[in-house]
Amino acid sequence: MTGPSDPDPWQGSFATRTAGLSASEVRALFAVASRPEVVSLAGGMPFVSALPMDLLTGAIDRTMRERGAEALQYGSGQGTPDLRQRIVDVMALEGISSSADDIVVTTGSQHALELLAKLFLDPGDIVLAEGPTYVTALVVFRSYQAEVRHVAMDAHGLVPAELRGCLDSLAAAGRLPKLLYTVPTFNNPAGVTLAAERRREILAIAAEFGVLVVEDNPYGLLYFDAPPPNPLRSIDADGVVYLGTFSKTLAPGVRVGWALAPPSIRDKLILANEAAVLSPSSFTQIIVNEYLASADWKSQIATFRGVYRERRDALLAALQEHVPDLSWTVPDGGFYVWLTLPDGVDSKEMLPRAVRQLVAYTPGTAFFADGSGGRNIRLSFSYPTPEFIREGIRRLAVVIRSEQAQR
Amino acid sequence: MTGPSDPDPWQGSFATRTAGLSASEVRALFAVASRPEVVSLAGGMPFVSALPMDLLTGAIDRTMRERGAEALQYGSGQGTPDLRQRIVDVMALEGISSSADDIVVTTGSQHALELLAKLFLDPGDIVLAEGPTYVTALVVFRSYQAEVRHVAMDAHGLVPAELRGCLDSLAAAGRLPKLLYTVPTFNNPAGVTLAAERRREILAIAAEFGVLVVEDNPYGLLYFDAPPPNPLRSIDADGVVYLGTFSKTLAPGVRVGWALAPPSIRDKLILANEAAVLSPSSFTQIIVNEYLASADWKSQIATFRGVYRERRDALLAALQEHVPDLSWTVPDGGFYVWLTLPDGVDSKEMLPRAVRQLVAYTPGTAFFADGSGGRNIRLSFSYPTPEFIREGIRRLAVVIRSEQAQR
Repeated sequence: MTGPSDPDPWQGSFATRTAGLSASEVRALFAVASRPEVVSLAGGMPFVSALPMDLLTGAIDRTMRERGAEALQYGSGQGTPDLRQRIVDVMALEGISSSADDIVVTTGSQHALELLAKLFLDPGDIVLAEGPTYVTALVVFRSYQAEVRHVAMDAHGLVPAELRGCLDSLAAAGRLPKLLYTVPTFNNPAGVTLAAERRREILAIAAEFGVLVVEDNPYGLLYFDAPPPNPLRSIDADGVVYLGTFSKTLAPGVRVGWALAPPSIRDKLILANEAAVLSPSSFTQIIVNEYLASADWKSQIATFRGVYRERRDALLAALQEHVPDLSWTVPDGGFYVWLTLPDGVDSKEMLPRAVRQLVAYTPGTAFFADGSGGRNIRLSFSYPTPEFIREGIRRLAVVIRSEQAQR
Repeated sequence: MTGPSDPDPWQGSFATRTAGLSASEVRALFAVASRPEVVSLAGGMPFVSALPMDLLTGAIDRTMRERGAEALQYGSGQGTPDLRQRIVDVMALEGISSSADDIVVTTGSQHALELLAKLFLDPGDIVLAEGPTYVTALVVFRSYQAEVRHVAMDAHGLVPAELRGCLDSLAAAGRLPKLLYTVPTFNNPAGVTLAAERRREILAIAAEFGVLVVEDNPYGLLYFDAPPPNPLRSIDADGVVYLGTFSKTLAPGVRVGWALAPPSIRDKLILANEAAVLSPSSFTQIIVNEYLASADWKSQIATFRGVYRERRDALLAALQEHVPDLSWTVPDGGFYVWLTLPDGVDSKEMLPRAVRQLVAYTPGTAFFADGSGGRNIRLSFSYPTPEFIREGIRRLAVVIRSEQAQR
């Protein structure tokens, strides 16, 4: 890093938008929390060790043997046709009816979000998002100089009356938002799911105001008991861009995600994808395709469900044991629990003291554009074993009690 | 595609910058030229079949066996430390002294260019580039609403006096450019190389005017006889961002490229990379690292040199045989020859007629922002065999003679 005695010679050259590009709170945490003695409930890493390595290796060997020259070459800016056809099948599991023609494969679904922001957001544009929302979505929107307004959630997700109220007052000010960004199912970070009956209502309100809905659904197949309500995209094909990914159901290291979009948006996504990366990796796309073609991937997802259910149960039981006086969300799937701290305890100020007690989490403020979340923390149960989760919550409880004692 | 009877409902929602994002001429060509009966001298695909598939498969197997969980997981936004260290060695071959700390791994070097454009370009900013220049760089700059001004080249690359003249007049108008984008070695599309004695001069002029140089060097190691002059970055570490890639020396399908940048720019590149893709693929980075660790990759690059030298020779001999009255550049490396057509023959108008004669090329206009290049075509010799190259030029000569006869 450049110190104050070493001024940045390029400071005057950066674009205006670059001023908004700062390190997220989650990013700084990754370094701290990666020490082995720290129980990290901070990151949202999937537990890839639960994958069948032999099946993956088989898919890779077959890729190299049968489609090596194709896998090593440039591909299409839209993604390989056979993988797009398989993605149609993956989304059909959640009730989405789609065509491979309307899918654009991206470098993780994060890149689909980046490309959408580039395509839609002028400086000063407004994006609506749940409060709290996915931290790196906030970074992306800010990097295109957009302003995020939060819409309140409750235990059943986004509140339709809040969305209408927000749109009414923005419309009155002549500042209708471009996008409604939402993680309706097993929300990151809140852990809650938008109720089925609210889904049509939210879509109707967005359509009424002409706001495009961006539905980010990385966790939908990772439910613990019953499947969640079908995605927004299964109800409305014209008003929703759906973002999916293999990062949580397979592996983030391959960076294969996708957008399913209405035709005019799809066409521009392909052009933006080509400008950004020429084509997504043929190599990892073909490997994912070969894995889906040969492995019993639905059983593999069921295995992941079992792993994460056990970890969620361990987290909830430990919270009940150590901090029964606090409140938290109870997720039916996904990776996260949203905890509310006692009055007067600040989640961000507490963090360095938690790390000294060898436990890490993400402060709630990371998930808001407006400084909210000071009394909340996100606890991720996807990566540590149940034993580590229990020990982590035991340590966290000690830190919280000590904070309370000092008030 | 959406037809005129089906108006785009989101037309009013797109950002201003999206208007500039249109399909490139090269893109439309790929579909046409992929028919097997067409000899394509259009695309710039490397000949990946010359790679040692057994060594690659070995690197992949070892990756899965020894570093499987790491390869499948999220990684660092800067790229894996061991690959960055190997990239230092790769660049040392061309005389660049660098530290792994200053390297940011990207999803191909294309993505490094996209991230730099995002970091530096406000609407209306000016970028200088050779005329002609790399087509997808033009797309990227236009997508951030920047204006490209071309600086003339001759057989020895960018002309220093032209660069100074251009900067003088821009300075007088108070419109200094943000970036000088250059492909100094085996230029795409012109095939020429910036002379050694001009390199210091170009850097001095850029420094005098405070313009950041972006040096794109995908072909530098693919020389045919003597090595080219060392890269600009080997002379000036403070004023140059260097872009490198494994797409031409190994394989584009893995999408692994990099930027080597001064510290303040590197820091922002990492943040922009994280916003765009969270982290580049751990999987493909580790495979590339394992390949470099185990294979004799310098010999492999020498093999590529031999393959491409033979193809260049075939192309030059065929031009000499069939169109000796025309002029063309003679590349000492890389993938491209730049041909000047007879007076009155239009490269873009001729293209559909060439495709009917089963030969494809890229019209020169694709490589200019200002409509120049109508009398030029780019001939790529990297992918077709020498036999196909000879047949392609035979067909092209028939088309050119027929065009001439009609004038």
